[in-house]
Amino acid sequence: MTRVVATGTFDILHPGHLYYLEESRRLGDELSVIVARDANVKHKPRPILPEDQRLRMVRALRPVDHAVLGDLHDMFRPIEELQPDIITLGFNQHFNEENLRQRLRDRGLDADVVRIPGYSGPLASSSRIIECILKTRAFPRPTGDGE
Amino acid sequence: MTRVVATGTFDILHPGHLYYLEESRRLGDELSVIVARDANVKHKPRPILPEDQRLRMVRALRPVDHAVLGDLHDMFRPIEELQPDIITLGFNQHFNEENLRQRLRDRGLDADVVRIPGYSGPLASSSRIIECILKTRAFPRPTGDGE
Repeated sequence: MTRVVATGTFDILHPGHLYYLEESRRLGDELSVIVARDANVKHKPRPILPEDQRLRMVRALRPVDHAVLGDLHDMFRPIEELQPDIITLGFNQHFNEENLRQRLRDRGLDADVVRIPGYSGPLASSSRIIECILKTRAFPRPTGDGE
Repeated sequence: MTRVVATGTFDILHPGHLYYLEESRRLGDELSVIVARDANVKHKPRPILPEDQRLRMVRALRPVDHAVLGDLHDMFRPIEELQPDIITLGFNQHFNEENLRQRLRDRGLDADVVRIPGYSGPLASSSRIIECILKTRAFPRPTGDGE
């Protein structure tokens, strides 16, 4: 059985996330997802949605067999627990693949690293969704009814 | 087999949507979802995400067996096609249940109407997510890297 692990923040779900997860799932028989902890998102603005909510939504997606929150201090710990054959990276995840492979080997982890290409769509990006909200809703204030 | 139909805009997916769909699915054996057309959302601000994207994301959710866009002119047409035994309403959907039952009967549709209670969570609401984005990201402009 080929175990695949995908990782990410998954802040406001969009088809780019879905494509990444679907393509990751196709590489094996079981897909586990490691969802970034709020406190560990430092290379971009803090997520809008809290980690428990992001985890719950990722778990509800059809390609996902299993999802957990990341470790606060050691990004390799959940990978050690999951023992994947393949770790996938999203097109915009800021890891050098060769460097990551080496760090995995240093931890005794024998996983291949596969980069999933980007998905193109006008709002297939959390930051573009946020920009769109700022552009269209900043004035006047939203009057949504709670849905 | 008990067929259930749920309906909604599903603009920015959150656990309130998921709870509504999970509870709807539990009422029967198969859940179909009718996703509101962009042009038909008139009782609240226009959706941020276009209808095709909202449809794709709803289809990816585990409790959903089948999803379609609504009809532009006749809200009962997809219901006639799906022939549900049960139609569920979200806690904030602005239909009078008895009135809706009568209109279904007038169209020859023998479906029960069930109201699903609300889900409580701080950001289990598209409009509260949008408010949070406006509050936290309006200044300075977001510098997200495209995720």
